[in-house]
Parts: sequence; structure tokens; C-alpha cells
Amino acid sequence: METNVIKGKPVADKITENLIDEVESLKNKGINPNLAIVRVGENPDDMSYERGAMNRCAKIGIDVKNIILKSDVSEEDYINAIEDLNNDKSINGILCLRPLPKHIDENRVKYAIDAEKDVDCFNPINSAKLFEGDTGGYAPCTPEAVMKILKHYNVELSGKRAVVLGRSLIVGKPVSMMLMGENATVTVCHSKTENLSDEAKKADVLIAAIGRAKMVDNSYVKEGATVIDVGINVDECGNLCGDVDTESVLGIASMVTPVPAGVGSVTTSVLAEHVIRACKKQNNI
Amino acid sequence: METNVIKGKPVADKITENLIDEVESLKNKGINPNLAIVRVGENPDDMSYERGAMNRCAKIGIDVKNIILKSDVSEEDYINAIEDLNNDKSINGILCLRPLPKHIDENRVKYAIDAEKDVDCFNPINSAKLFEGDTGGYAPCTPEAVMKILKHYNVELSGKRAVVLGRSLIVGKPVSMMLMGENATVTVCHSKTENLSDEAKKADVLIAAIGRAKMVDNSYVKEGATVIDVGINVDECGNLCGDVDTESVLGIASMVTPVPAGVGSVTTSVLAEHVIRACKKQNNI
Repeated sequence: METNVIKGKPVADKITENLIDEVESLKNKGINPNLAIVRVGENPDDMSYERGAMNRCAKIGIDVKNIILKSDVSEEDYINAIEDLNNDKSINGILCLRPLPKHIDENRVKYAIDAEKDVDCFNPINSAKLFEGDTGGYAPCTPEAVMKILKHYNVELSGKRAVVLGRSLIVGKPVSMMLMGENATVTVCHSKTENLSDEAKKADVLIAAIGRAKMVDNSYVKEGATVIDVGINVDECGNLCGDVDTESVLGIASMVTPVPAGVGSVTTSVLAEHVIRACKKQNNI
Repeated sequence: METNVIKGKPVADKITENLIDEVESLKNKGINPNLAIVRVGENPDDMSYERGAMNRCAKIGIDVKNIILKSDVSEEDYINAIEDLNNDKSINGILCLRPLPKHIDENRVKYAIDAEKDVDCFNPINSAKLFEGDTGGYAPCTPEAVMKILKHYNVELSGKRAVVLGRSLIVGKPVSMMLMGENATVTVCHSKTENLSDEAKKADVLIAAIGRAKMVDNSYVKEGATVIDVGINVDECGNLCGDVDTESVLGIASMVTPVPAGVGSVTTSVLAEHVIRACKKQNNI
């Protein structure tokens, strides 16, 4: 079987194209979509994602307001910054870069962000909507990017067996709910799963989000399966790689996303889509 | 294989016994745990559950305040009734009997109930906690009753394959999260699942919550599996029955819960436990 290495870029490009049109029509109405990005300190991962989000927004025509707080900002001041953005009518979406420094309790501050501006599922109101299958909320961007890729490449989900490797709140659990919402039969595996590769091999659609470099090799993949690699790791040579040993699954999987240039390249487009949706909702459009 | 028909009563009795002691020690401190039950109209299912809850509370020493609203109560008046209970310091838990009449939008009123008094997971804050694996919230009572039974009868979950038939918000999704929290490898099946009986047959622990009388027969059950029947249906003769054809799985399953006298008999004990936990938390104990 020839394996199709499916990239994120065409997916992101298509979403971006649609959003450019949407923003133009909003601007014609005098509405300027605006995303606030709140960063604490100078974590390189945060700064890299921030740059990606800013580039995407610039392409689409979304304004970005950067709020940069000192790494020792108090929990109270962090919450105050969020509340200022909640109250600022020019701001449509708020992205809080996470994880936050340990002295700030995420389980407390997450309630502060206005659920209607919470474009990356920080507030539990949006987690609950995701859990309940209510698509009116804002799901986390990475698992939604996975779904966008599956949809773009016409991967059938209804009635199919999807196996998710990993049960994190960032990817595993949310993507399971989304796959269930598309009528897949979903199995969630994790570190305690017995015979992990056997379970994975039952998948028509395999989502790898377990956080171990190149762990998923050909022994995990059924002939013809679609493999989505959500891992971001660094291999022994210092190169970026995913959870999937891509070379090893070539010839077995029908499709596989690469790392880099796979899921990660779609995430900021989903974020931008959320900002536009929030903006339209806030303007009753 | 001899099948052990495992009843709910011993599980409920044990929980009740512990709670009686807890309430005694609370009353010695001058604290009287108090549950408000809010019913709209005279739905027989609601009234039956209400009676069960009241009997359980009476046994344990929990006071009950019954709020009975007319079937045509407005959404606003319903919310007002909830808010009065939120503000009433003598009330520790609030049980809203559901489903509500159609003219009341559950998706709106669910935000009204104080999450700290929400003993049956109505407020999305508690759904989100369940989703996130935060056991500090209040999960819905029926799926938690399933977990109590599994624990009471020493059913091993870690690393085992649990298959949940049904993806409802009342049972299927919550019990999946709870099983995942106990390190089971969880598969959620539903009406769109292909080869449902084959999937079910992979289960070490099978949870039937699909709502069809006696659908789960011996073709769904692996030798030695534990089968938990959450269904409440009426068979062709008008008798109460579950989703499992109990007769058919005898000799195959290692354990099976009966209907009636299974999961349903544990639910009100879980409710009472939530009331006591809420009461203690509200009194900083």
C-alpha cells in the first residue's frame, strides 16, 4: 500500500482563505476582529506559538494585542489582566498561553476568563460544552486541528474504530469526545493499557498523543489505517519529531501526518476561526 | 462458569452505614445536613425517585426540603427557586429532578445552581470537573453508583478493557471518564458502532446503558466478563427489565447486576454521600 503523507498546510490554507473573506466582510461593516494574547514570562514554547498565532492573524487581518506579564506576576494581577480584557469591548478573543508558572493556580484562574472570549478552552464552561457535545463552545485548538485534517482528507469516521493513544486534557480526552461526536467508536489508551500495540492495531483511525518520540511504529498500525501524529518531541539527534516513527509505518498506513508540517500547522488557523466566530457572536452576526 | 448475580443492596447498605456515623458526628457538632429536592409537576418517574431519595435520607438522618413547582412554572421562577436555595445557608445540597418540562431551557437554567450545592452534576462546572478527572466535584449519581458496585465487588479495572454501550450524558460519557480515571482502557460504543456485539465481547467489564430491553445477550459477553446493567426498561409483559438479558448471560459472565435490585438501588446512597460531602465542605470540616 502506498502511504499518503498528509500535510497540514493545505488544510490551514483553506481555512485561512475562508477567514480572509469573512474578515473583509466584517471590516466592511466597521468591525475589526481582535485577539489578545496573554503571556507570562519568556518561555520559548510560548513565544514560538505566539509568533505563529500572530503571523496567522496578520495574514487573515485579525488585530492582535499582546499582554506580556512578568514571570513573577501574582495570581491576583494575572486575574486582573484577564478581567480587563473581558471588559474591553474591542477584544473578541483571549488566548492565555499555558502552562502558567507554578505559583499561579490554573484551577482557580481558569474561571476568570469570559467563556465567550475563551478561544482555546481554558474556562470549564467550554470544557463542559465539549464533553456534552455542544459545538457552540470553543474547543481546544490542537484536537480540533486533528478533526479538520481528518475532514479535509475525507477520512470516514462514522461507525469506524478510532483509537486515541493518550488521555491528556490537552489532546487525548478532547479529541475522543470530538471523534465520538462524529460517530466513531472510540477507544482511549494510556500508560496503563495492556498490549498497547494490539489495541492500536484495531484502529481504522489512530491518534498518537502520548508524548514519546517515535514510539508508534509498524507494530501499532493496521494495514490501511489513517495515522494522525499529535506528538511534538525531540529525537536523539536533537531534531523535532512526533510520536510516530513515520518511516516505519510507510507502506502500511494509508495516510500519516508528518511532524513537523502536520497537525501543528493547522492549530493557529483553528484559533483564528474561533476569534472570528467569537467576534461575529459578540456583534450578533 | 458460575455467574454471581451481584445486587446493589449490600453496596448501598455499606455506604448508608458509613453515612449514618458521619451524620451522627455532624449532629454532635450542631450541624444538620439538609437536601432540597426541586420537582416540577407530577411526573411519576420524578416522584418515584424523590420517594427513594427521601427514604434514604430519612434512614441516614439527612433532612429533606421538598420544593414542588407547578408544571407550567416559568423559566424565571424556576431559576428564582434555585437561587433562593443557593442563598439559604441551611441547605447543603440541591437535587433538581430532570428532565425539566420543555418550556424550560435546561441549557440555561443549569448555570443557576451553585456548583457547591449541585449534588447531581447539573452545573457544567461539575461536568467539567468530571471530564478533567477532578474528583472534587459532584459527578452524576447513577454512573458513580456503577463505580461503587465495581469497587465493592473487587472488580479489577486498571489496564482492563472496559466497553461502555451508550454515550449519553447521563451515564455513558460520565462512566467512561470514571473508568478511565481508574486506568481502564475504555471503548465507548453507540448506535453507529459497527459489529456492536463483537466490540462488547472484547470487554473485561461491560457497561450496558443503551436503553433497549434485554438487548445484551450471550453473544455480547466474553467468558468471565463482569456485566453492569444500567438500563431501566419495561419488557413485553410490562415487567421492569434492564438492557441485559440476564438469563442468557448466566454461565458466561463472572458477575452481572440484576434489574431491578442492581445499580438503581445504589443511586440514592451516592446522592446522600454527596450531600454529606457538600455539608462538610460548607462547614469547613
